[in-house]
Amino acid sequence: MPLVRIDVLEGKSPEYRAQVGQIVYQALLDTLNVPKNDRFQVIVEHPTGGLQFDRDYLGVHRTDDCIFLQITLNSGRTVEMKQRFYKAVAEGLHQSLKLRREDVVINLVEVPKENWSFGNGEAQYVTPQS
Amino acid sequence: MPLVRIDVLEGKSPEYRAQVGQIVYQALLDTLNVPKNDRFQVIVEHPTGGLQFDRDYLGVHRTDDCIFLQITLNSGRTVEMKQRFYKAVAEGLHQSLKLRREDVVINLVEVPKENWSFGNGEAQYVTPQS
Amino acid sequence: MPLVRIDVLEGKSPEYRAQVGQIVYQALLDTLNVPKNDRFQVIVEHPTGGLQFDRDYLGVHRTDDCIFLQITLNSGRTVEMKQRFYKAVAEGLHQSLKLRREDVVINLVEVPKENWSFGNGEAQYVTPQS
Repeated sequence: MPLVRIDVLEGKSPEYRAQVGQIVYQALLDTLNVPKNDRFQVIVEHPTGGLQFDRDYLGVHRTDDCIFLQITLNSGRTVEMKQRFYKAVAEGLHQSLKLRREDVVINLVEVPKENWSFGNGEAQYVTPQS
Repeated sequence: MPLVRIDVLEGKSPEYRAQVGQIVYQALLDTLNVPKNDRFQVIVEHPTGGLQFDRDYLGVHRTDDCIFLQITLNSGRTVEMKQRFYKAVAEGLHQSLKLRREDVVINLVEVPKENWSFGNGEAQYVTPQS
Repeated sequence: MPLVRIDVLEGKSPEYRAQVGQIVYQALLDTLNVPKNDRFQVIVEHPTGGLQFDRDYLGVHRTDDCIFLQITLNSGRTVEMKQRFYKAVAEGLHQSLKLRREDVVINLVEVPKENWSFGNGEAQYVTPQS
């Protein structure tokens, strides 16, 4: 269910980008109760200028390694869960890829469960009585 | 009003991608009461690795033809309308392009009507008394 | 906080695209009370066919210069503020880049303030007591 958009600047390998996706997926499992195998991601690399970001907004120093994660998911997660998710992503990316924690920008967009079809033209999250 | 993001893997022709857009547009007209000519779409093809998706989540088998549709539209559609839309898109893509119905992943994001400007710096959906 | 997605057709210079980003940023500051330096933008150019849009929906005539702006931001802005924003963007792009006002399509997506992390794995907009 989460649809994850990952935007990075050019200069990293396909393996690096795939690893970013894997780490985000794992953090979704671990902290937001996302179901196993629920992985749908769009990973895009951009030329210089394709990502514009302030280098110091809120006192966080960002570099050209900065990545944007925009994640659409079902509503219902608490503030505390979201906070654990942000931490898990930044920690995971730092541990596995040496990405600076400052370089991880995340945004969540929430939708109701009937707003998804995972194939076959069906709304799989809609239960018969709902 | 719907802003439609269509993400596909490389390997299809421009005509194929345009046809996907046309079919999604037609399904929006037919099932979600979208006004005629209300068509705004971003269609992107990605290299291998640019779309990451589970091949069997929820028991639906997906292939490299899998496409993601993320559609931002005004709120107000019922669950039943959304279900008809998912079915119309999957059917239309299958009939016209032989795309497997399993390979159609859809997500809706809903916004209020004042969240659109269709040009001229105006909020065309805001009525004077609203 | 606003995460701004800017989609344009090929044929403009990097400087043009960067200028679009700058003008949108300035309009966010001027009309929607976005904090200074709160600038996060993804700017993508597309080949012919990558942007599909009706040339005359709602009587607004659009050309190949048409750009799409999709902006995710915190909820809380009034309809009037949004209207001022649309006008400021269209005016700014017209004044600085000679972009026709008709060619500016804008969509807003609103989220709660806990839906952002600007780095360090923290939810910077969540206050301790919230």
